[in-house]
Amino acid sequence: MKGRDLTESFVSGEEVYAGGFFRVHRDVVRLPDGKTSAREYIRHPGAVGIIALLDDGRVVLERQYRYPHGRDFIEIPAGKLEPGEPHFETAKRELLEETGYAATHWTYLGVIHNAVAYSDEGIELWLAQGLEQRAAKLDDGEFLEVVPLPLDEALAMCADGRITDVKTIIGLMRAHSLHAGPGGRVRMLP
Amino acid sequence: MKGRDLTESFVSGEEVYAGGFFRVHRDVVRLPDGKTSAREYIRHPGAVGIIALLDDGRVVLERQYRYPHGRDFIEIPAGKLEPGEPHFETAKRELLEETGYAATHWTYLGVIHNAVAYSDEGIELWLAQGLEQRAAKLDDGEFLEVVPLPLDEALAMCADGRITDVKTIIGLMRAHSLHAGPGGRVRMLP
Repeated sequence: MKGRDLTESFVSGEEVYAGGFFRVHRDVVRLPDGKTSAREYIRHPGAVGIIALLDDGRVVLERQYRYPHGRDFIEIPAGKLEPGEPHFETAKRELLEETGYAATHWTYLGVIHNAVAYSDEGIELWLAQGLEQRAAKLDDGEFLEVVPLPLDEALAMCADGRITDVKTIIGLMRAHSLHAGPGGRVRMLP
Repeated sequence: MKGRDLTESFVSGEEVYAGGFFRVHRDVVRLPDGKTSAREYIRHPGAVGIIALLDDGRVVLERQYRYPHGRDFIEIPAGKLEPGEPHFETAKRELLEETGYAATHWTYLGVIHNAVAYSDEGIELWLAQGLEQRAAKLDDGEFLEVVPLPLDEALAMCADGRITDVKTIIGLMRAHSLHAGPGGRVRMLP
């Protein structure tokens, strides 16, 4: 989509916080009108979210405590990229680590950007089917409960506000629109 | 949804970065197994996103340069709460400031959480109809281009990856499902 140039260009910058989880940068930028301003943002390694559909039509969700909000959330399995790790490898690794499932069929459902104003994070969404149960192996300090739910029920939870996590809402909708047959039922793998 | 207690409780904490745009906290927490770990997160004032539907069925989108990504994004109008400001007032204010539109009909479309692992941000989504053009008045240092597009085209852009911003994808889908009639057309106000 074209129009006037809205580019903000780097003038100077520094890393103002380097934590264990993320790094914050603060740059001075040149605005389209020639003035300068500051932009603060998180540098994030990138992430994946996995919509894992069981053969019986249930989707593998997780209940996880999210400390910034002080409560549990229902979410799809997800995780950050390790240094140099391709997204697809992260998807396979996180699904196995968090839920114990391995998948035979993978379908790419696009990338989403969850905080464009202050983070460079992108989340790739992947649909996983042909699931086989193996053994989960959570990271140290990671606690969650695997909750398989019918896809229709999960979508209803997005609609009524029980699910509010963005990667989960968009992932479930995309899996549904990709796999909903004429009767609204999930189409199974042959 | 009940199950075992996954609560992580505050042990100690500090603000490790206070910028002009956001504040970063680092807390030591007690995990469900009794061990301690660190949690870093952003404290955010909260935000709103507005799906503004014109009487002709177009939705008022914006093209805006997002510095963390180094490129333009197509998004719904949105903005952060001022201190003490109710979400609905923010919605009216941001729509007017960014696009110049005032609306006579407002419908709440729920709240979404865009970075549950590292931010307490919630984004309330509001549908605005009965739009009247007034004068936009952008914040200092804010540059954007208002782009009205047919709702169907905007939804197609979500599907093909031209729109990847989460509040925009979810807001457009909710406006569509709320207002799509049997023929898939947007239902107009009486």
